[in-house]
Amino acid sequence: MSFPADQLIPLQSRIIVQTLRTVKKVGDVLLPETAKMEDFKQGTVISTGEGRYSFNGSIIPCSVKPGDRVLFGNRTGMKLSSSSDSDYYMLGDEAILAKFKE
Amino acid sequence: MSFPADQLIPLQSRIIVQTLRTVKKVGDVLLPETAKMEDFKQGTVISTGEGRYSFNGSIIPCSVKPGDRVLFGNRTGMKLSSSSDSDYYMLGDEAILAKFKE
Amino acid sequence: MSFPADQLIPLQSRIIVQTLRTVKKVGDVLLPETAKMEDFKQGTVISTGEGRYSFNGSIIPCSVKPGDRVLFGNRTGMKLSSSSDSDYYMLGDEAILAKFKE
Amino acid sequence: MSFPADQLIPLQSRIIVQTLRTVKKVGDVLLPETAKMEDFKQGTVISTGEGRYSFNGSIIPCSVKPGDRVLFGNRTGMKLSSSSDSDYYMLGDEAILAKFKE
Amino acid sequence: MSFPADQLIPLQSRIIVQTLRTVKKVGDVLLPETAKMEDFKQGTVISTGEGRYSFNGSIIPCSVKPGDRVLFGNRTGMKLSSSSDSDYYMLGDEAILAKFKE
Amino acid sequence: MSFPADQLIPLQSRIIVQTLRTVKKVGDVLLPETAKMEDFKQGTVISTGEGRYSFNGSIIPCSVKPGDRVLFGNRTGMKLSSSSDSDYYMLGDEAILAKFKE
Amino acid sequence: MSFPADQLIPLQSRIIVQTLRTVKKVGDVLLPETAKMEDFKQGTVISTGEGRYSFNGSIIPCSVKPGDRVLFGNRTGMKLSSSSDSDYYMLGDEAILAKFKE
Repeated sequence: MSFPADQLIPLQSRIIVQTLRTVKKVGDVLLPETAKMEDFKQGTVISTGEGRYSFNGSIIPCSVKPGDRVLFGNRTGMKLSSSSDSDYYMLGDEAILAKFKE
Repeated sequence: MSFPADQLIPLQSRIIVQTLRTVKKVGDVLLPETAKMEDFKQGTVISTGEGRYSFNGSIIPCSVKPGDRVLFGNRTGMKLSSSSDSDYYMLGDEAILAKFKE
Repeated sequence: MSFPADQLIPLQSRIIVQTLRTVKKVGDVLLPETAKMEDFKQGTVISTGEGRYSFNGSIIPCSVKPGDRVLFGNRTGMKLSSSSDSDYYMLGDEAILAKFKE
Repeated sequence: MSFPADQLIPLQSRIIVQTLRTVKKVGDVLLPETAKMEDFKQGTVISTGEGRYSFNGSIIPCSVKPGDRVLFGNRTGMKLSSSSDSDYYMLGDEAILAKFKE
Repeated sequence: MSFPADQLIPLQSRIIVQTLRTVKKVGDVLLPETAKMEDFKQGTVISTGEGRYSFNGSIIPCSVKPGDRVLFGNRTGMKLSSSSDSDYYMLGDEAILAKFKE
Repeated sequence: MSFPADQLIPLQSRIIVQTLRTVKKVGDVLLPETAKMEDFKQGTVISTGEGRYSFNGSIIPCSVKPGDRVLFGNRTGMKLSSSSDSDYYMLGDEAILAKFKE
Repeated sequence: MSFPADQLIPLQSRIIVQTLRTVKKVGDVLLPETAKMEDFKQGTVISTGEGRYSFNGSIIPCSVKPGDRVLFGNRTGMKLSSSSDSDYYMLGDEAILAKFKE
């Protein structure tokens, strides 16, 4: 059961991120470069939820927006779906460590 | 003891979701397609509670409304009841991961 | 030591619920239908406490009122007392999952 | 070391409750009826503290007052002292389950 | 290393309590009456801190004041120092169960 | 996969710190002085996030700023990347123990 | 790696305390009097952070100031550095039990 990530609207303070799978050529075979035991992943924000509620009910917006290039821990997030060259992850806003300068 | 889901009003920030069981034909026998070890389920929101109280007593409404098509984790929620083609689950609002664009 | 449930005023956000024991006839013997390993119980609210205090000391009323027919988990609540055809349970307001439409 | 309960002023949201020991006559010997493995105890409130502080420093008064007849769990509270026919317990306000209608 | 308790100003919501050691005469020898495995101790408040901060930064004063005779659990508090007839304990305000009527 | 630390903007209350690797000459070989089992590390703040949200949604800025020389525990923080003479760590603001007087 | 304590500005609600090592003469040898398995240490406050943030973002200052003579538990705090006659510890404000009257 796959979910075209771009059809989804994440809720509350969740974020959907697209990570491009880099590809290595071995002979004629294109091998997806599985992320070596790296600590981090890079990706682009596809969509974000409204944000989370503070204790008194006001909304605290997500700290990133669609289009931001971001860094997150390798073992964080749930894989939503995959396409030929990309994986789509759902993460909480607080799991996004940093964004790259534009 | 079964509960016709549509007779229930979930309380606080609970949600009732209907998931359609997809059916596979094996010879002449209709076999419900048990969800393979998928991580997610899709379904339609039947009803929601008022929402949850923030720390200072104001109400934070649920993030989905009846009719929304939603995505939630496969192992979340309590199965309330079943009908011929559907199952009805009760979940907390925070367990709904995303909703599909209309 | 039994407590006539109707003499009790539950405190804070507690609720007292009466559940009718359905009875099955086996030959001439009336056997109380012990709830098979069901996940839920149905019952009628007898009385509720004032509600619970939010963080800033305002009162958040209970989400149900006497006379509401409600649904709660089979293993939640403390059995207060029993009569010929009913059991009386004390639960916290947050343990009541849903109420039936009137 | 015994403490005449009526000389004590419980602090914050603590309550002192007097429970009467029912007595059974066995021959000529008065045997205190030890509470069979009951789930609850009944008693009368002797004194209460001012109440507890909410998060923003306002006081939330205790939910019972001296003279109320109350119900609490058999294994809750600390036995402060005993007299010929009574035991005196100290409990937190939130451990009092219900009070009896006057 | 001993600390004359009266030279200390406890901080935040801490309290210093002096408990008198009752003494039993065995023949000509004065034996300190070690508290039998009692649940409680009695003592007099020597000094208190300013109090604790509520969530919004206001100060909640201690519930006892110097000179109050108080009751606390036998296994609570840190022994600061001892003199010939007394022990000095440091406790948190919330560990003081009750105070004796003056 | 390495991340030029200066291209990153840490989010929320995260900080990026550069620590210089001191180098020891053994014969003609320059050996990076691996930090002996020290408890602390020193480094210079490269960039900080906006800060963290208090309970009521106001922002509490980070306690250090780019250029501050700071002290933090040896086992805290995630190593982001390394260059010839430096390592770059990402830490939470609350993990920075002290800063050196300018 | 040693840190001259007086060059450090502790952050948030941290405190730096100097404890004098008392010295015992054994013959002509000056032996630092290792604190017997005492429960407490005494020392002088060298510097304090700004304080900690309450839930709503206001600052709660530290309860001691430079120059105060203070008491803290023997096993609390991190040893920052040592000089000929002193040790320097970093503690959280809430770990300081009491201060000595001036």
